[in-house]
Amino acid sequence: MSQVRVRILGVGMGPGHVTPEAAAALRSADYVLAWDKGDGDTGLLALRRAVVAAHAAHVPIVTIADPDRDRSPELTGPGYAAAVADWHDARAARCAQVLGERGGVAAILVWGDPALYDSTIRIVERVRSLGVELDYDVLPGISAPQLLAARHRIVLHEVGRPVHITTGRRLAQAVASGQDNIVAMLNPDGLDLSAVADWTIWWGANLGAAGEQLVTGRVGEVADEIAAARQAAKAEAGWVMDVLLVRRP
Amino acid sequence: MSQVRVRILGVGMGPGHVTPEAAAALRSADYVLAWDKGDGDTGLLALRRAVVAAHAAHVPIVTIADPDRDRSPELTGPGYAAAVADWHDARAARCAQVLGERGGVAAILVWGDPALYDSTIRIVERVRSLGVELDYDVLPGISAPQLLAARHRIVLHEVGRPVHITTGRRLAQAVASGQDNIVAMLNPDGLDLSAVADWTIWWGANLGAAGEQLVTGRVGEVADEIAAARQAAKAEAGWVMDVLLVRRP
Repeated sequence: MSQVRVRILGVGMGPGHVTPEAAAALRSADYVLAWDKGDGDTGLLALRRAVVAAHAAHVPIVTIADPDRDRSPELTGPGYAAAVADWHDARAARCAQVLGERGGVAAILVWGDPALYDSTIRIVERVRSLGVELDYDVLPGISAPQLLAARHRIVLHEVGRPVHITTGRRLAQAVASGQDNIVAMLNPDGLDLSAVADWTIWWGANLGAAGEQLVTGRVGEVADEIAAARQAAKAEAGWVMDVLLVRRP
Repeated sequence: MSQVRVRILGVGMGPGHVTPEAAAALRSADYVLAWDKGDGDTGLLALRRAVVAAHAAHVPIVTIADPDRDRSPELTGPGYAAAVADWHDARAARCAQVLGERGGVAAILVWGDPALYDSTIRIVERVRSLGVELDYDVLPGISAPQLLAARHRIVLHEVGRPVHITTGRRLAQAVASGQDNIVAMLNPDGLDLSAVADWTIWWGANLGAAGEQLVTGRVGEVADEIAAARQAAKAEAGWVMDVLLVRRP
């Protein structure tokens, strides 16, 4: 079999953010590989279909059932990493089978940017380690923190200062370590913000998609508003993903 | 005079990264405001001209001479912030004059993303505080760290871990504070990497533009290669901007 080519394309937060280079790569693919989480027309699969429809309607989408993943909130540290590794292995095995059978040029669309809290690059590396002869490239896309900043019309940091990007699970740890300008992604429902009650927050959910919500203010004063906005986003879209920036007073 | 509208558009690292929403905003502008640093066809002005030519050739570019800025490398802390503030004030005054005279819809093209180490939002806020009646919006663009990650085909952090984004001036401080995954931007020539000699580095210059260079390896082993690549980028393009990710072993 000839070598498989995989193009990992950051498609930003929807069709309006797909760069010309990503759109061109998408149009030149033989097919799009997409995970089907069983949430039909309401989840990320629907968003990917909209991107393909807008930029490369002639390219077929090949779906792969997404393996189950242990998402227990009590998983932390090594347990969390092990659960993620198991899931990546399962994804890689399914991906290897489809790529091995189909060959050609496959595009994988990454919501946001492949460089930030996304496993696609790692999974494609694992597919290769499973013996599928492949090469791949990566094109960047607009990520959620960038759209959060744009919508709120802010810079992510003060002049010349750092910005620390982490997960909701590690937010308290970042605060304790002295960070004063923190972006948190992959936030669980009911994320505890008590450690930053007097900080300023810029929060957004479902940015660039159905159910978009924005809230800003002092954390202690807007926490209820954020909880309500998160529910509203989920009620409108059927899913919710949020991102936040908090800044020490 | 009717209200001025300013559209701050992240145009990524060149024409191939301009998103459809940014391109549409650019096409609908009456003119593009661009700083002229006196470096003619070799600097960022030329890059902006290329973006306009590719996406909105009918929109005229109005240049404003960029005020002088104190870039002494010994400026740190309050001195650095004061020098930046002076420069922003001078830029805002010139910008206010042009926007006040011309009115209409002005687009300002930000190389990279307006949310990261860019002063455009702050300057436009200052223009408003000078009495120019204006409203503005912001659209995100691909930033240099994202293209760095894409070119090297890496995720910016290990699974579930943070990434710390800072300036070259503050790199040593980030290392000393215990960060183990650091992106540095706005790097001066001859940036001291001795504090991270045994770390892994992914480095790039002039990403997406003329003179693009990539180097990766152990810092101590590739420092000379990086210095040579930086010179090569500058020799080819007439300017150099680099970005790096370092990860603790």
